[in-house]
Amino acid sequence: MNFIEQVRSFPEQILRDKAFQIDRKFNKIVISGMGGSGIVGRIFAELYEQFPVQVISDYKIPDYVDRDTLFIAISYSGNTEETLSTLKQAETLGAQIKTITSGGELGKSGFESVMVPSGMQPRNALGYMLAPLLRSILKLDAEEIKSAASILREIEKKSSYLKEMAENICSDELIPWIVGYEPYIATSYRWKTQFNENGKILAVNSVIPELNHNETMPLKMSYGLKRFYFITLGNPINERTARRLRITSELTGLKFHNVMEAGNTKLQKILSMIHSGDYISYYVSEIRGLDPMDVSLIEELKKRLS
Amino acid sequence: MNFIEQVRSFPEQILRDKAFQIDRKFNKIVISGMGGSGIVGRIFAELYEQFPVQVISDYKIPDYVDRDTLFIAISYSGNTEETLSTLKQAETLGAQIKTITSGGELGKSGFESVMVPSGMQPRNALGYMLAPLLRSILKLDAEEIKSAASILREIEKKSSYLKEMAENICSDELIPWIVGYEPYIATSYRWKTQFNENGKILAVNSVIPELNHNETMPLKMSYGLKRFYFITLGNPINERTARRLRITSELTGLKFHNVMEAGNTKLQKILSMIHSGDYISYYVSEIRGLDPMDVSLIEELKKRLS
Repeated sequence: MNFIEQVRSFPEQILRDKAFQIDRKFNKIVISGMGGSGIVGRIFAELYEQFPVQVISDYKIPDYVDRDTLFIAISYSGNTEETLSTLKQAETLGAQIKTITSGGELGKSGFESVMVPSGMQPRNALGYMLAPLLRSILKLDAEEIKSAASILREIEKKSSYLKEMAENICSDELIPWIVGYEPYIATSYRWKTQFNENGKILAVNSVIPELNHNETMPLKMSYGLKRFYFITLGNPINERTARRLRITSELTGLKFHNVMEAGNTKLQKILSMIHSGDYISYYVSEIRGLDPMDVSLIEELKKRLS
Repeated sequence: MNFIEQVRSFPEQILRDKAFQIDRKFNKIVISGMGGSGIVGRIFAELYEQFPVQVISDYKIPDYVDRDTLFIAISYSGNTEETLSTLKQAETLGAQIKTITSGGELGKSGFESVMVPSGMQPRNALGYMLAPLLRSILKLDAEEIKSAASILREIEKKSSYLKEMAENICSDELIPWIVGYEPYIATSYRWKTQFNENGKILAVNSVIPELNHNETMPLKMSYGLKRFYFITLGNPINERTARRLRITSELTGLKFHNVMEAGNTKLQKILSMIHSGDYISYYVSEIRGLDPMDVSLIEELKKRLS
């Protein structure tokens, strides 16, 4: 599959019926993963509230990991050194370990694994990596996931305004600044990383209401405001946050470019917004004439690290 | 106290011997706080690994909060609406509740509280708000805190290079981009917010190793790289992360401006780095001829929200 075919496969990915078994009770979850794999944990954490979830994107896991911890290592390649380092520690501490990977060292580690199809860019396999968490832990039923998939299939058809936004961003060489809020906090980070990885441009994200406690003044008084393109994602769940967004726009005089959400449930909304971010970041790479698949610098980094 | 006197009081603040009692066992901690109060929770979370800690900077707490949860509400003013909203929920869910505040609604809420001196900018009262967590939960001894304070007293004397950095940032109207890593992840966020609140300029932070999984390519290939001033904080704890930092600098050709750390223990290093951020952001406000205390837009926002 070429890049855009990988992007288009997102709705089918989440329908994939593979899940892992939960062997014993747990009272906290630690998910370890970097970049396009780690985002899976962040999205899950925004959907799940039954027990504490900590997403680790580093070499070390916290000391509190124990036998009552469900530890999920996610690495698309299966060879991410940070994730493998955390896996070893989780094993020593006696955690219940599950893995999600397409192969590599993680696939050979002997822990129960959901194997996902290989040969893709990790960030384009988000649906495959998220699906087992939706089924095994969130216990969403097949119907809910099916209806989310059918909403996702509509996103590309309505994406011409996303292409226009991408053109405006690129023609003025603006840095996208994505403003998130519940339920799009992890999603705003996903958008940032998609602009980074697909479009090869810098991007920034912040979150309301926290933004109001430090960025309100600079959003009016800083130099350099015209170098950014401010994007807001759908509508805040919380009515107070919605008011904050409106007032922030009035007070700063900034133009916030809103991206429409689709669907009704939290899952549908989040996944549809993620998918819109896939397209806009792809359009940036197209407009800039760059290969969105290009990860040459990261390959070189890994070589020099080894 | 004027602004710089408030900044200078940081070493004395952490020496303040006020702590709350832990009434019963807990197995997780939730800290609720926004902006200059919420950062206290983030710094604590980077120092503490015994139980899961989640820092909430929003209106809602997770459903898992229960009788086994230590819930700490931190609001300098005591009137932060997000924090008060979470307090109500925590009470309903039966959590063990403690508060840190200078007064306001939170001070009158009837829960055991560490009261801190009023009349300061919340961000300048960080030491007062952090001290009870260091004593009650981290159980640091007075000697360790004393030695950290004496290191903090040296920071301003050695801050001329921070003033120079601030001048370089302002004269070219650059946006500071702070690159953090263990043990300076929360600190890199504190730096960002201090540039925001004191200097009234936009700022960005990212974290290694996560940065290598999405920002490596744009740090070489994006337009607009010259609009940023990249700052790295001291030395990474992890040797692999240190190598990542070196190689990232080589591959991207970017100049990273390093800020020296002081002290030997994790606490000393973190607090010293935070204090350096206090000074550099103050220098930015001085150079721009702005009042670092000015929060007029936030006052206006609160008025329109009510």
